[in-house]
Amino acid sequence: MNIKIKGYGLYIPPDIETAKDIAKRIGRTEEWILNKCGVKERRVSKIDVDEMGAIAGKEALNGGSEPDLIINASGVPKQTIPDTSTFYQKALNLEGIPSFSIHSTCLSFLVAFNTASALIESKVYKRILIISSDRGTIGRNYKEPESASLLGDGAAAVVLEPSKQDEHGKLLYYTMNTWPSGAHLTEVRGGGTFKHPQNPKTKISDNLFSMDGPGIYKIARKKVYRLVLKTLKHTNLRKEDIDWVVPHQASGKAVDAYISIGKFPKDKVCSTISNLGNCVAASLPITLITYIKKKKVKRGQNILLIGTGAGLSAACALIKY
Amino acid sequence: MNIKIKGYGLYIPPDIETAKDIAKRIGRTEEWILNKCGVKERRVSKIDVDEMGAIAGKEALNGGSEPDLIINASGVPKQTIPDTSTFYQKALNLEGIPSFSIHSTCLSFLVAFNTASALIESKVYKRILIISSDRGTIGRNYKEPESASLLGDGAAAVVLEPSKQDEHGKLLYYTMNTWPSGAHLTEVRGGGTFKHPQNPKTKISDNLFSMDGPGIYKIARKKVYRLVLKTLKHTNLRKEDIDWVVPHQASGKAVDAYISIGKFPKDKVCSTISNLGNCVAASLPITLITYIKKKKVKRGQNILLIGTGAGLSAACALIKY
Repeated sequence: MNIKIKGYGLYIPPDIETAKDIAKRIGRTEEWILNKCGVKERRVSKIDVDEMGAIAGKEALNGGSEPDLIINASGVPKQTIPDTSTFYQKALNLEGIPSFSIHSTCLSFLVAFNTASALIESKVYKRILIISSDRGTIGRNYKEPESASLLGDGAAAVVLEPSKQDEHGKLLYYTMNTWPSGAHLTEVRGGGTFKHPQNPKTKISDNLFSMDGPGIYKIARKKVYRLVLKTLKHTNLRKEDIDWVVPHQASGKAVDAYISIGKFPKDKVCSTISNLGNCVAASLPITLITYIKKKKVKRGQNILLIGTGAGLSAACALIKY
Repeated sequence: MNIKIKGYGLYIPPDIETAKDIAKRIGRTEEWILNKCGVKERRVSKIDVDEMGAIAGKEALNGGSEPDLIINASGVPKQTIPDTSTFYQKALNLEGIPSFSIHSTCLSFLVAFNTASALIESKVYKRILIISSDRGTIGRNYKEPESASLLGDGAAAVVLEPSKQDEHGKLLYYTMNTWPSGAHLTEVRGGGTFKHPQNPKTKISDNLFSMDGPGIYKIARKKVYRLVLKTLKHTNLRKEDIDWVVPHQASGKAVDAYISIGKFPKDKVCSTISNLGNCVAASLPITLITYIKKKKVKRGQNILLIGTGAGLSAACALIKY
C-alpha cells in the first residue's frame, strides 16, 4: 500500500525514575532489575495521556493542515467513555474531525498503522494522525517486581498520507495473529464489566498490570520468528535486506531475542528499553521515531516493525520508510 | 466499496426488566420513564460481554469458514487488557485469528463497518467478523434516572465479505464527525488513567454511566440532519430513495427525531428502543438485524445507518444491503 509517514512527534516526560529509585519499592536490588528487565531508567509523566499524546500529535502535524482522521492507538484509555481520541482532539484545539480508538494493547500502533493504510488506500481518508500515549507507571503492581520495573510513560504520533508512485513510503507487508490461549499472560482484569470498579469482589491487584514475562517469552519467541520468515517469504526479501528492526520494547530480553534468536545483527535492532522502559503501545513508535530523529532510519530503507502484545498477539509490518 | 453482509447474529438476553421494575430504584413512576425515555422494558444479561458476543458471532459465522479478522466494536470492554476481541475468539473456540477492538462508544459498530470495508477493499482481509456486545445495565447510575432507565444489554454480529460487481452489497457512502466540545455530555469517567480505580479521589459515580440526554439532543439533531443532507448530496439520492433508516437507539425521543425533524416516514424508521432500550454500541446492529430477520430489510435496498455517540460524535453510512 502506498502510504508514507509524513510527520512524526514524541513526548518523553522530563521526570526520570531510575532502577535504584524503584528497587526499594519492589523489594529487589538495582542489579536484579538490570539483569532481569534491562531497564536502567524510565520516565514518569505528571500530565495525563491526552495531553502527552497531543504534544506528540502537534509535533507530527508540524503546522500543516488538519488531519481528516485521528486514531488513538494506546493500551489504556484516559477514561472508559468517551474514547481517548476525543481528548487528544480537545487538547489539540481541533473540532469536528472524525476520531476513534484502536485497542490491541502493545500492538495498537501496528494495528492502527495497517488500518490507517487501508483507509488511505481505499481513499476514505488522506491525512491520518495516529497517536499512541501510555502511562503504564500508574498501573504498576509493586508486588509483581518484574512487570513493575519494566513500565514507563511516553507518547508518539505519526501522520500518514498517500505516497505517489515514484515516492518513498510503502507498507510492503503486514501480518498478525492472536492466540486467546495466552490471554491470561498479560492482563489488567479491572476497568470493564468483568471486574467492575463497583464490584465488591474486585481486588486492588485486578486494577493493576499483571504480566507473566517468562511465560510470554517462551511462547512468543517461536511465533515471532515465524512471522519474520513469513514476511521475508511474502516480500521476496532476505534478512540482509532489512535495514532496521524496530521491535516493541517488551523487555531487555525480548529486544535481545531479535539478535540471539532472530539472528539480526545487533546494530540493526533498535532499542530504547534501557532508558525508557516498556511504554506499552507507545514503545514501538517512540523507538522508530527516536531512530528517525537520530538520522539512522532513512527514507527508502526497509524497516521491520514487530512485536507481541496482550491477547496473546504478535504482528509485524514491513515498511519502506 | 464492494462489501456485503454475508452473515448476521444476535444475542438478546432472556431476562426482562420492565419500566415498572426499575421505577422504584430511580424514584420515578413508570409513566415518567415511558414519557421521558420510551423504554417499556430492557434485557439484563447474566452472562458477560464475551459470551454474549460469541453467541451472536457464532450465528453470524453460520457454520461457514473461520473469519480472517475479528473486530470488537463495543462501548465498554470486558477488562482493560487484553481487549475484548481476544475473549470473543476464546469463547468461539478459535485460535490464531488476528483480532482487535475499535472504540467509539455507541458508534463503534459504524466505525468498525467502515474500517472493515476499507480493509476488505484494499484486500488485507476477506471475511471479517464484527461483534458489538454491551452490558450497560452494570454501569447504571440510579441517581441519574434518565440514563438509568434507558440502558439495556444485548449483542449483535455481522460477517463482512467482498461483494462481486453484479452482486448486492455496497457501502455507498460514509461520513463522521467528532466534536470534543461535547465530550462531557456522555461519560464513564473511571476505568482509565484519569479516575483510576486505585485513585482515592475516584467516586462511585465516576465508574457509572453519565449522560446529559437533553444536552445531546439539542446539539445532535441539527448535526445529524446535516449528515443526512450531505449523504444524499454525495450519493445523488433523494430522501424517498432511502428504504430504511436504522438509527442508534439512543432514546425514544432520539429515534422519533428522524421522523419529526428528519422528515422520514414513520414506517421507514427502524426501532427497538421500546423493548430493548439503549444497548450502547450493540443497539444499531441489533436493530438492523432484527429488521433483516423480520424480512423487512431486503437485499438491494438502500439502508441509512446513522447515529450519535459519546465524543460527541455523529456518523452515518449508506449501504445497499
